[in-house]
Amino acid sequence: MIESSWNSWFAEREETHLAELFDFLRIPSVSALPDHRSDVRRAANWIADRMRQAGIPDVEVLETGGHPLVIGHWQVDLAKPTAMIYAHYDVQPPDPLDLWESPPFEPEIRDGKIYARGSGDDKAGLLATILAVEAMAARDGQPPINLVFFFEGEEEISSPSVAPYLRENASKVKADFVISADGMMLDENTPALTISTKGIAGCEIVLTTASTDMHSGLYGASVRNAAQAMAELVASFHDDAGRVAVKGFYNQVNDPTDREREELDRVPFDAERYFGAVGVSDLWGEPGFYPLERLWLRPTLDINGMWSGFQGSGSKTVTPSEARVKITCRLVPDQVPADILDRLEDHARANCPPGATLKFIGREGSALPYAIDREHPALLAAEETLRDLFGSDPAIIRVGGTIPIAQDFKQELDADLIFFAWSLPDCNAHAPNEWFRLEDFRVATVSTCEYLERLGRA
Amino acid sequence: MIESSWNSWFAEREETHLAELFDFLRIPSVSALPDHRSDVRRAANWIADRMRQAGIPDVEVLETGGHPLVIGHWQVDLAKPTAMIYAHYDVQPPDPLDLWESPPFEPEIRDGKIYARGSGDDKAGLLATILAVEAMAARDGQPPINLVFFFEGEEEISSPSVAPYLRENASKVKADFVISADGMMLDENTPALTISTKGIAGCEIVLTTASTDMHSGLYGASVRNAAQAMAELVASFHDDAGRVAVKGFYNQVNDPTDREREELDRVPFDAERYFGAVGVSDLWGEPGFYPLERLWLRPTLDINGMWSGFQGSGSKTVTPSEARVKITCRLVPDQVPADILDRLEDHARANCPPGATLKFIGREGSALPYAIDREHPALLAAEETLRDLFGSDPAIIRVGGTIPIAQDFKQELDADLIFFAWSLPDCNAHAPNEWFRLEDFRVATVSTCEYLERLGRA
Repeated sequence: MIESSWNSWFAEREETHLAELFDFLRIPSVSALPDHRSDVRRAANWIADRMRQAGIPDVEVLETGGHPLVIGHWQVDLAKPTAMIYAHYDVQPPDPLDLWESPPFEPEIRDGKIYARGSGDDKAGLLATILAVEAMAARDGQPPINLVFFFEGEEEISSPSVAPYLRENASKVKADFVISADGMMLDENTPALTISTKGIAGCEIVLTTASTDMHSGLYGASVRNAAQAMAELVASFHDDAGRVAVKGFYNQVNDPTDREREELDRVPFDAERYFGAVGVSDLWGEPGFYPLERLWLRPTLDINGMWSGFQGSGSKTVTPSEARVKITCRLVPDQVPADILDRLEDHARANCPPGATLKFIGREGSALPYAIDREHPALLAAEETLRDLFGSDPAIIRVGGTIPIAQDFKQELDADLIFFAWSLPDCNAHAPNEWFRLEDFRVATVSTCEYLERLGRA
Repeated sequence: MIESSWNSWFAEREETHLAELFDFLRIPSVSALPDHRSDVRRAANWIADRMRQAGIPDVEVLETGGHPLVIGHWQVDLAKPTAMIYAHYDVQPPDPLDLWESPPFEPEIRDGKIYARGSGDDKAGLLATILAVEAMAARDGQPPINLVFFFEGEEEISSPSVAPYLRENASKVKADFVISADGMMLDENTPALTISTKGIAGCEIVLTTASTDMHSGLYGASVRNAAQAMAELVASFHDDAGRVAVKGFYNQVNDPTDREREELDRVPFDAERYFGAVGVSDLWGEPGFYPLERLWLRPTLDINGMWSGFQGSGSKTVTPSEARVKITCRLVPDQVPADILDRLEDHARANCPPGATLKFIGREGSALPYAIDREHPALLAAEETLRDLFGSDPAIIRVGGTIPIAQDFKQELDADLIFFAWSLPDCNAHAPNEWFRLEDFRVATVSTCEYLERLGRA
């Protein structure tokens, strides 16, 4: 149990807050499914109402080309910093339904966990920020710093409206930094501060060796087989040791600093458990780095899919004329997606087997890697807040995945993003039986109060 | 126009024979589709009736586990040889229907060609053998040699009932050799005699690197990617020059003899046209051999299909845990399928990337390569018949594909098979708009009469 003067406030109101959270969780705000379009809007309106109830003076539900944005402002003192509070109110589709132990949109508490779609990702976290601001407003009349609330309904469909909105309305949502309520702890006892996420660049490559699939007996002996040509090309992207063999791929990649390695060493990463959970015992990858270094500090080139020819049951003696591969690269500072795509294309063309025609399709949706300055004042304030509350250092972590929203805020508002959030890695986000710990709902509210207060004292 | 005393007989009856062929073609005897089961039987009964009408004294429709066999006997003189006449009365499925210019089961003549599913493969050829025997019986009271008719309804589904039937009933269908009405000419002016067909051996290989597909950002950096592992394995099956790199793969393969090379040289093989038809300009394959040598005399290892991971539209950043490949090898004398499969498995295991688990599934349906003795009397008789009829040597050719039925007759009856048939290579067998030349329907009947008569004089 964390120590805080705010504990009693939230303990007294726990029943009401939980009932509100359940109401919010009952709205099936699935952004990916057109049938739930009105539910997504209902969730937006629900939040806007709750924000107004919390005392936030300036709340709007804004139209976008897709689902609405819920924007709020509470300006208290121009001498104080302005924090944007970011979260999303949309959720993943609940399929497959038959694997849920209780219905996804009928929240249920079992073993101290709230089970519902969106509980961990990230409705509990979102509501906690509103409840925290409400608490401070109730006690002090206002929050300790200026706040901009930015709640989107499209995070689970890659936030298509966020960057365009920010580009056109930067002055309306200007903030010094962003606090994201969407994120994770390291484990039940260890909050985490994420200091970088990887960028991404992807492509699809098509090899064509003939105008039609062919009878292998009539053509196989003398015609380049597209599947085989693709195998050769795909195999060429890494050297035998596991290093990416694309020329210049690592040019912009910085070697880990001593501090980075030290912080990594302090993270209690149980590789056996981590990889054992997916049935992997023999590891692989870029030589010279530990698994956690590879995961957090090193770029990768990943084959996401590869296919050619006959995939049915039984046998079909065909010489395939076309083969396809989908590749994405996870990027680290200071790699640039467009540059990496150019290098991938150069490599593919240089290694394209003779007799095959190559089509290179750079994918939309690339993202720059993101990293926050380790000495960013709002990050240090978060670190100190968590140290005080938990009595030990939070984990300084990174994300092997890509969170484009962080880069959107950086690019459009020049605002860094601090992940201040409470889900656990095994909370079944995006999977059946998603959960959020009951205890962490209180941790989220109390910690947010403490963090905003510390920011106000700075 | 070939010279023959039989020309006038068939010219006089052309309209009737064509009407009968059209009736036969109208029966959609698609062996692969359960919905057409009764149509296949209808075709069998149609043939049996037509055989009886032709005067063949002993005709039966025999049950098998699958579609029926139509068996006929006409024993004329024990001092004469016995030829089996083989063909199939089933056809390929007609899909895709929208590519047909006229409906597949409504025969139509355009530009001297009969368009219909099964016209070229091989209903015209089958019916021609019955019409030829009818003609000889009408003139002479009986055919010039003993005949066994063996018409199956499962050729397009790999003839599963033929070998078992032959194994149990060898004495009932004993013949000195087999004449197949299913086969091809080299081109419009050049009949062909096929002296070898390739064998086949196939397998499917599964590589597994984890118990589930993984998030590429969370696992891609340190877990063996199944697609990539498969690419490495598939690429290992050939060396850079195009030679099969499986140890011992060529051990049983004989170098071409001078006579074989000479006969190959005489075949008017237009590589530019042959490969151009499938959009291929840059050839590939085993070094040291011409394309036709590779096609007819050299074994191959063909990747028929390969797949792993995400194949949908857009992007899915997954690290695949499983990859599959389907491989078949086309074999030449004296390669043995079981031995080749052992060598493939040894190669796959030796080249399986660390961290991947390999499952090797040897496929059913392997077939030995087949070759007829170049001096076989029935082959020489066919050669002489064609030389006389066409005024030039027939092409002595081979088949890069596999015709398991040839090996079935060899194994179970010790009978060699002579392809005596009239389809053209570009007749769209197995494809939309299948055709058979109207002129070749007469060539087929007349040539069969001449051939049987020559066999009778031997």
